[in-house]
Amino acid sequence: MTTSHKYTIGVDYGTESGRAVLVDVTSGQEVATAVHPYGDGVIDEHLPGSDKPLPPDFALQNPQNYIDVLVATIPQVLRAGNVRAEDVIGIGTDFTACTMLPVAADGSALCMDPKWRDNPYSWVKLWKHHAAQPEANRLNEIAAARGEGWLKLYGGKISSEWMIPKIWETLNDAPDVYAAADGFMEAADWIVMQLTGEERRNACTAGYKAIWNKRAGYPGKEFFAALDPRLENLVEEKLSTDIYPIGQRAGSLTAEMAAKTGLRPGIAVAIGNVDAHVAVPAATVTEPGTMVIIMGTSNCHMLLGREERVVEGMCGVVEDGIIPGLFGYEAGQSCVGDHFAWFVDNCVPAAYFEAAASRGLNVHHYLEGLAAQQKPGESGLLALDWWNGNRSVLVDVDLTGLLIGATLATKPEEIYRALIEATAYGTRVIVDAFHSNGVAVDRIVGCGGLPGRNRLLMQIYADVTGREIRVAGTEQAGAFGSAMFAAVAAGKAAGGFDSIGEAVEQMAQLQDVVYRPIPENQAVYEQLFAEYTRLHDYFGRGGNDVMKRLKAIKAEALGEHEY
Amino acid sequence: MTTSHKYTIGVDYGTESGRAVLVDVTSGQEVATAVHPYGDGVIDEHLPGSDKPLPPDFALQNPQNYIDVLVATIPQVLRAGNVRAEDVIGIGTDFTACTMLPVAADGSALCMDPKWRDNPYSWVKLWKHHAAQPEANRLNEIAAARGEGWLKLYGGKISSEWMIPKIWETLNDAPDVYAAADGFMEAADWIVMQLTGEERRNACTAGYKAIWNKRAGYPGKEFFAALDPRLENLVEEKLSTDIYPIGQRAGSLTAEMAAKTGLRPGIAVAIGNVDAHVAVPAATVTEPGTMVIIMGTSNCHMLLGREERVVEGMCGVVEDGIIPGLFGYEAGQSCVGDHFAWFVDNCVPAAYFEAAASRGLNVHHYLEGLAAQQKPGESGLLALDWWNGNRSVLVDVDLTGLLIGATLATKPEEIYRALIEATAYGTRVIVDAFHSNGVAVDRIVGCGGLPGRNRLLMQIYADVTGREIRVAGTEQAGAFGSAMFAAVAAGKAAGGFDSIGEAVEQMAQLQDVVYRPIPENQAVYEQLFAEYTRLHDYFGRGGNDVMKRLKAIKAEALGEHEY
Repeated sequence: MTTSHKYTIGVDYGTESGRAVLVDVTSGQEVATAVHPYGDGVIDEHLPGSDKPLPPDFALQNPQNYIDVLVATIPQVLRAGNVRAEDVIGIGTDFTACTMLPVAADGSALCMDPKWRDNPYSWVKLWKHHAAQPEANRLNEIAAARGEGWLKLYGGKISSEWMIPKIWETLNDAPDVYAAADGFMEAADWIVMQLTGEERRNACTAGYKAIWNKRAGYPGKEFFAALDPRLENLVEEKLSTDIYPIGQRAGSLTAEMAAKTGLRPGIAVAIGNVDAHVAVPAATVTEPGTMVIIMGTSNCHMLLGREERVVEGMCGVVEDGIIPGLFGYEAGQSCVGDHFAWFVDNCVPAAYFEAAASRGLNVHHYLEGLAAQQKPGESGLLALDWWNGNRSVLVDVDLTGLLIGATLATKPEEIYRALIEATAYGTRVIVDAFHSNGVAVDRIVGCGGLPGRNRLLMQIYADVTGREIRVAGTEQAGAFGSAMFAAVAAGKAAGGFDSIGEAVEQMAQLQDVVYRPIPENQAVYEQLFAEYTRLHDYFGRGGNDVMKRLKAIKAEALGEHEY
Repeated sequence: MTTSHKYTIGVDYGTESGRAVLVDVTSGQEVATAVHPYGDGVIDEHLPGSDKPLPPDFALQNPQNYIDVLVATIPQVLRAGNVRAEDVIGIGTDFTACTMLPVAADGSALCMDPKWRDNPYSWVKLWKHHAAQPEANRLNEIAAARGEGWLKLYGGKISSEWMIPKIWETLNDAPDVYAAADGFMEAADWIVMQLTGEERRNACTAGYKAIWNKRAGYPGKEFFAALDPRLENLVEEKLSTDIYPIGQRAGSLTAEMAAKTGLRPGIAVAIGNVDAHVAVPAATVTEPGTMVIIMGTSNCHMLLGREERVVEGMCGVVEDGIIPGLFGYEAGQSCVGDHFAWFVDNCVPAAYFEAAASRGLNVHHYLEGLAAQQKPGESGLLALDWWNGNRSVLVDVDLTGLLIGATLATKPEEIYRALIEATAYGTRVIVDAFHSNGVAVDRIVGCGGLPGRNRLLMQIYADVTGREIRVAGTEQAGAFGSAMFAAVAAGKAAGGFDSIGEAVEQMAQLQDVVYRPIPENQAVYEQLFAEYTRLHDYFGRGGNDVMKRLKAIKAEALGEHEY
């Protein structure tokens, strides 16, 4: 390793752990990786050191764990990569979102104050904290009734996972915490503040999660007052209008954090980012026309455009939210890898596990092999991929899974393939929604865990969408993308880059494999997709709301009350 | 055992074996049972002693095996029951149907003639021989086009399993066999002819399987000529118009068969019967108002009425076909026990088998126990029970299974219960179709294999149908019913009975258990049944023919051509 090489570090904060990658800025080589699990994990039963049960649907985290990740992993990757601190020119981070916390005036987390430590509302609410559903429902009703224009930019619905419902929940259930908080921040911005000592909120989380728009700002005071008179001045009192585009330098590493991590003080720290969004340049994409799909437990679809368009069911469109100067679009499917995992855990007989083991395969690979022997359409099965509701384009958590076409000859591997195909049809609906609304999808790049694990799935996606699909070179697109933005934050003068486009050219790669649509398969899948669409619209657009009624009957049977 | 007791023997011819039961006429006690598997089983690959593959969808049998059953089992039950031949006053039989064969003028099976033995068309075509589907399709088209009035008495469709398509198939594919046959007979009538030496065809198989009607006779010559000019005189040339009501004496046991079985020559032999139909009096039913459901791999619904009514999708209505003097109605569900077996074989993880084994249960009982802990509606699941098509009321083999409402929290035991419930809804559709068309269903009696094995299923059927359900005392309703009819054929003078009503009173019983609808469950199931009905009609009555289109795409993928 020559001393002329410069390096950056990307840190990806996931749900259970943080991951750091040390990247060679010149070659894009991933020199070393380290993962550190959060000491307190996902806090959903009781606070650390307490026996008191948390309310239902709570999912909290301890912000100290985020600091611990830096302290544990950065020295580790420097050591493993045999890289000197003086050759590391910057650090970038990305986070789950909306993962948010109340902070004191100095930016410290409220839960770190002994006065508030016993109050669960002072802790970080993780993205999957779902206790703000009543507030989200009420917010959506009020926004729709008032005809708020921004609602259509979020697919017509603000999620209970997002910033405003989560803040409102705290106001309702813990007004003392609300009053004590000098602000509410995304963890993505909080960790950057810990690194730099300065507050520099990013456009990505503000735009996608906090209803902020570069041109229109936040919703108006009247809207917030309509939610609750106490929220009228929410923006001025608890948020910030000082928002920075993705790709900027947030500041310089403090002496304190340099000492804790073994890095040099003063190196560049990039503006905070979100795991899915930072993956886009990691997948080599900085221009419109190519959809990046992060494929894992769920699918996240990222796309760039030069204009703000309204597309049915998208999760959001944010200027500067992914790549500076462009509009970043996001859509999603709630259940992909989770779907296959559910199937394997609940529906696959022992004989398949035994056959897989005897071949030295995991059962997913074994099922994939069997499913790959089937021709499209051969099983006679069709599924709606709604085991976890539908995010895009229907934005309806009360939709449920459907399987049609089963016979006494139906085999598990046929159902497995039908579930894969169902997620491909779900992606096709999203692709069509963007493409037909002027946000071109000419090709696709996959990243995340699934592309490397399931070639059949990738080919089916190519056949169903009619698009060529390639795969990102990096298997840790989040952390790698953060390292790229770190190089941009550092700038060319320091050995980095002056734009994310340059960083992509130098650092990011695609794998050699190309999944091209196979015309015979495409022809069959066109027929099947037409059937999928008919069922999708019948069950998803009010033709027959049986799924919702079954959920209502279920809630009644369980003695639950609906909101 | 006192010498004053009189006995009869019932022989039930199933798909794989024959079963004889020796019954005490006075008490109804089942004194002894013996089962004898058919030596050649179901012949679907090649004829015995041949390597030549049979055509697809063939299912043949060797009629000699039927004789073998008598020779093997009757001496066995006499011995096991310690009953003397002089105390046995009659024998009755029942058969699968339409299981038919070509015969020579003397009633011998054509396949027993060395001249024809190598020709598969000379053998018995078992009920599940499905090679006559093209003929059945054509027959239904022609009958519908001609507006044949009898078609509505068979739910609008003649099955490929029935007599006329099977004869026509032989005419088309083996005209020499057709020409050589002096007649085509139901095996039910053939075995009676072997016992008595005389041809006495029964009204049950003639009515349900050969389009015969007590008042209208067979379809007219013009219809048969429209099928094929060579069939114009089918009835006169190959069938018989000499048809006897159920409950009559067919004749007396020949000396030859007496010698082979150890019975006395001259004892009464009952008119032939069908397994499902003979179960009705065995389940104590001889009057309108009570539906008997034979519950096993499939469900068969039998009901009596005083008038001929047209009910959607019934399999048939035949005067004297079940109980003399009444109209016997039949309907069916194609997939019940088979459904649960498919699920257990294809969809249940190893952990369930292990948990069942550790409790000493089979996995069905274990799943039943888990499913019984759920409240109606609690799973949020709903299924259409069409894994093997739908017989009643839609009469459509191209319908397929559907499961709706699945989530990532769905468990196998929830799907298991949903499948049970789906078959209960299917039965409810049939019950409603009869009851609302003037053929009352006030209560239900179950028999067959399932009622004794699955109490949860019985309770769900009671809750869903809103009817009290009882269970037949005998676990072998076919053979037991045949023994009852044997006692009627023998007559009171010989120690039997003069009517089937008397036989029921003396011999048949119900078990003590009574399944009564539970009002809370009924209320939930009314809601769920409304959802079932909506899906049933949407997918089954042309709202969305996706199931048929998926089957067509599947056939195309497999390179099959549809008829």
